[in-house]
Amino acid sequence: MPSTILSRRDLAFLLYEWLDVERLAERERFADHGRETFDAALDTAERIATDLFAPHNKKNDQNEPHVVDGKVAIIPEVKAALDAWSEAGLLAAAQDYELGGMQLPCVVEKAVSAYGMAANVATSAYLLLTLGNANTLLKTATPLQVERFVRPMLAGDFFGTMCLSEPQAGSSLSDITTRAEPDPQDGPDGERQYRLRGNKMWISGGEHELAGNIVHLVLAKIPGPDGRPIPGVKGISLFIVPKYLLDADGKPGERNDVVLAGLNHKMGNRGTTNCLLNFGEGQHRPGGRAGAIGYLVGQQHQGLANMFHMMNEARIGVGMGATVLGVTGYLHALDYARTRLQGRHPAQKDPAQPQLPIIAHTDVRRMLLAQKAYAEGALALVLYSARLVDEQRTAPDEAARLKADRLLDILTPITKSWPAQWCLEANSLAIQVHGGYGYTREYNVEQFYRDNRLNAIHEGTHGIHGLDLLGRKVSIQNGALFAALGEEIGATVARARDVASADLRGHAAQLDAAWQRVVTVTQAMYGAGDMNRTLANASLYLEAVGHVVVAWLWLEQALACPPDGGSEPDFYRGKLQACRYFYQWELPKTGPQLDLLAQLDTTALDMQDPWF
Amino acid sequence: MPSTILSRRDLAFLLYEWLDVERLAERERFADHGRETFDAALDTAERIATDLFAPHNKKNDQNEPHVVDGKVAIIPEVKAALDAWSEAGLLAAAQDYELGGMQLPCVVEKAVSAYGMAANVATSAYLLLTLGNANTLLKTATPLQVERFVRPMLAGDFFGTMCLSEPQAGSSLSDITTRAEPDPQDGPDGERQYRLRGNKMWISGGEHELAGNIVHLVLAKIPGPDGRPIPGVKGISLFIVPKYLLDADGKPGERNDVVLAGLNHKMGNRGTTNCLLNFGEGQHRPGGRAGAIGYLVGQQHQGLANMFHMMNEARIGVGMGATVLGVTGYLHALDYARTRLQGRHPAQKDPAQPQLPIIAHTDVRRMLLAQKAYAEGALALVLYSARLVDEQRTAPDEAARLKADRLLDILTPITKSWPAQWCLEANSLAIQVHGGYGYTREYNVEQFYRDNRLNAIHEGTHGIHGLDLLGRKVSIQNGALFAALGEEIGATVARARDVASADLRGHAAQLDAAWQRVVTVTQAMYGAGDMNRTLANASLYLEAVGHVVVAWLWLEQALACPPDGGSEPDFYRGKLQACRYFYQWELPKTGPQLDLLAQLDTTALDMQDPWF
Repeated sequence: MPSTILSRRDLAFLLYEWLDVERLAERERFADHGRETFDAALDTAERIATDLFAPHNKKNDQNEPHVVDGKVAIIPEVKAALDAWSEAGLLAAAQDYELGGMQLPCVVEKAVSAYGMAANVATSAYLLLTLGNANTLLKTATPLQVERFVRPMLAGDFFGTMCLSEPQAGSSLSDITTRAEPDPQDGPDGERQYRLRGNKMWISGGEHELAGNIVHLVLAKIPGPDGRPIPGVKGISLFIVPKYLLDADGKPGERNDVVLAGLNHKMGNRGTTNCLLNFGEGQHRPGGRAGAIGYLVGQQHQGLANMFHMMNEARIGVGMGATVLGVTGYLHALDYARTRLQGRHPAQKDPAQPQLPIIAHTDVRRMLLAQKAYAEGALALVLYSARLVDEQRTAPDEAARLKADRLLDILTPITKSWPAQWCLEANSLAIQVHGGYGYTREYNVEQFYRDNRLNAIHEGTHGIHGLDLLGRKVSIQNGALFAALGEEIGATVARARDVASADLRGHAAQLDAAWQRVVTVTQAMYGAGDMNRTLANASLYLEAVGHVVVAWLWLEQALACPPDGGSEPDFYRGKLQACRYFYQWELPKTGPQLDLLAQLDTTALDMQDPWF
Repeated sequence: MPSTILSRRDLAFLLYEWLDVERLAERERFADHGRETFDAALDTAERIATDLFAPHNKKNDQNEPHVVDGKVAIIPEVKAALDAWSEAGLLAAAQDYELGGMQLPCVVEKAVSAYGMAANVATSAYLLLTLGNANTLLKTATPLQVERFVRPMLAGDFFGTMCLSEPQAGSSLSDITTRAEPDPQDGPDGERQYRLRGNKMWISGGEHELAGNIVHLVLAKIPGPDGRPIPGVKGISLFIVPKYLLDADGKPGERNDVVLAGLNHKMGNRGTTNCLLNFGEGQHRPGGRAGAIGYLVGQQHQGLANMFHMMNEARIGVGMGATVLGVTGYLHALDYARTRLQGRHPAQKDPAQPQLPIIAHTDVRRMLLAQKAYAEGALALVLYSARLVDEQRTAPDEAARLKADRLLDILTPITKSWPAQWCLEANSLAIQVHGGYGYTREYNVEQFYRDNRLNAIHEGTHGIHGLDLLGRKVSIQNGALFAALGEEIGATVARARDVASADLRGHAAQLDAAWQRVVTVTQAMYGAGDMNRTLANASLYLEAVGHVVVAWLWLEQALACPPDGGSEPDFYRGKLQACRYFYQWELPKTGPQLDLLAQLDTTALDMQDPWF
């Protein structure tokens, strides 16, 4: 039976037949690599995901972390799986050799991580958070901080968190109130110390016993000359606050003053601890005093910029999580549809005839095809974005790096948001294919649906990414990011105009028209002369442009298929049919959306609170 | 603080200002009634829903029914709430006086039941199932059966179930295998007895101790002359199978041979027991022999027709359940948006300014307005359908009854399916408005979302209703049902053309064009000459026509608003703005859908299993 975690065939298609990942081995950083090492990493990931991640996915959901004697109890399978992942080198797969990594390209590492997430998104979250934390520190921390905190994280000995939100400050980070005051005493390593006090909310992985230490990356405000926090984002600095302070040998020692105040209980993603943390309330007294000891990362008041350095990659991670939930749900539904017998063709009037597998019903195939179009379209988007990270970092010429940087920047809100919306829809369709069984906890698909609902909220809500795309990414650098995206789409259109397939030429014309419409509409929106009105429908803009982008990547996939079907005609016919589905059923949805945007519709803007 | 269960103001608007329910009191059946008695029933329902249903909604979800010592344990609050509802006369609110009812119109009874469902859909399910069962029996059962089974159900002493599905037969009822064989012995009341053997799946309310007896309505096959079940739906008969056989006084006595084989554990609706039941496996031996004793209802081999007599009303019930989950989710989100402070206007650059309630953000208002448009649109649809039931039963002239019958028949698949799709979307938006909090089980909206996902599956899946609408309702009686709907829409368009409001006149033109397009497209689809192709996109047809119908009912609501806003301008402005939202944002979505249908798109039909 084929795996229901991920389709290895599809991954190979995207990586090798479309994104030409093998050619990355021509670059110095990846000189030791090639398809063989990439495949070996994927093999390892698939094996560990199958053997250690997937088997406890439901158990973890049904036995969520809880507090016992002041510690967070987590089923033992989680630590066993995480340890195996780290020991196989997969956590640090993309990191420098000198940090214990394998120097795999980002795009391969993301495909590797996709296996863990598809098999068990809750357990994988600890890995993603740790990597996000480590990557942030690698960008701005001191060599000593890297040595003491990053190295053990990449080895899987310590785990990391990102502590941004507070109960009263979620989307509005400028309103955080956690304070960091200089400590009169320096740390044992001579580093300047701060004392942090405040509460952090929604901290995934915020407390557990899965690793020897927890390295919290914390946003906090250093008081200004008047002793009061500086209002707004300009007052925010970034700190390392370890759960256990390190001794001179770098071993976890004295307990720091950061404690669990409560666990949040979610609809999905239940296997990941999600915490309210109290900093500096004096439950522990490191160095004899209350206050959580923290170390400044980078310059003071640059905390948000430092934290957001790695946001693009973290957001690709969220996009990947949403995507692979869509993929695995689709594969589960496909498997069910091929084996569940129910009903007959409309024209078959003889009830004595045997029932058919439900995949024989057109409406079931529609639901499977939609899932395929959403999930594989999202996977293309996420891997394309990861490929841009490699390009941005290792492309031989400056212009290529700059272009990748621009494309990555403008695509990030879409890469984060589109899979959250449409792979959730895929998961809903996976339930629908299963009928009543899909709605029960005896099957797997309802959990995917619950897990996936988170992804439109964390790492910036859908609405925030709409504002990021329309209000910032589209206009910065004089529209250079937007123009770069248009160039890429135009290049694909140009290539598709010359192919033999009339279908693909038709898709190219549709895509070209849709993108031209996006350009015109974007100009019209910026011509409104009223920023409130321009941005009023930013979420809709995000959705419309997202659909055009995924249509583009479906055409890209179709162009990567051998016109004659090669030796696997079924596989490529499936790709082309999913592409056709996207152009027939999905891209046209942007028509009315772009109409609304072109009108600068004010229906929501005009609505008044008392009218509700 | 206004109630977050339902908006009484909106109910009053729909019932009295739009549907003119007071005029029903002119009819003999409702002669004792008027707005005063209607309001009294609604008052009672609101009070019991608030005091006894809502408080245990979350507790029931988190402490789902489970088996203890062979019995199903359910938190005691459920029985207390159900008893209060029955004792207040609300269960039998629409029934005849002689059966202990209040003879309220169906539309009022549905509004009454809406309170129970909005406050606690899982607990209310026992009531709905019992009513569905009783109404089925009232249509076809013998006077003795009515006396012995229906009367105690309407008093809340017995509860009822509907046993249709089997593990191997869900949507395909023709494939049920439960057998019913004539018993040599008659029952104590001289009634012919059958012995049933088989397994029934997904039986809500199938086992519990909430009432003195459980009256199962069971579909089973009486063997033909060759001793084998007759294949297909033609072999299906309907039976009453009580959990306890009744003694000569009608009291529950000997235990019948129907037993719980297992409870299903669902994503939502957790408070309703949902069972696999075994009939006739000999665990109990009524009359000294294995086999569940059952009594035939109506003619043999007419079981499906008898069961489906009351399907229209049961499906209005499902539509109402989905709808009010949307309504209560919206009211919760509205309340949260008015109190949660977060962020500032885009133009406000001063972070020292206080944060705003999030309803000040346009994107939050968009999400609230969408919820209002979906939830209040669905409520209009469901109450309109219930009003048609009253018309069908009590309109003074034959032509009006016939027309109501036709409209009800064609609207039923939409009334059942549209709220399941769009009020689920409303619940997703309610989570989104809450941000991370909405995703936690500490708040209420995630449960609404989980509960609501069931509604596109049970009582006929989305796909089944698509086939019912396009494959049957549109074409039967030479298209008379479809024509009746067109006439009603046309009448609304004609009325709106004469109003002062340019907005409403514009909406009328849009609606007229959309309906004409539906007519043309429907003709084109029936002209395909290939039923597989005509029906290939039936689900999409259901969705497109559903949106046009709800647009029509939004225009109806807008026309019921006083043009000058009367004494409550805010309330009516809200209605008009939600109507505008529907015409700006929603109705245009049908454009690409109708394009696909007009093309008789074969993307899903052409897709082949091996291509996936």
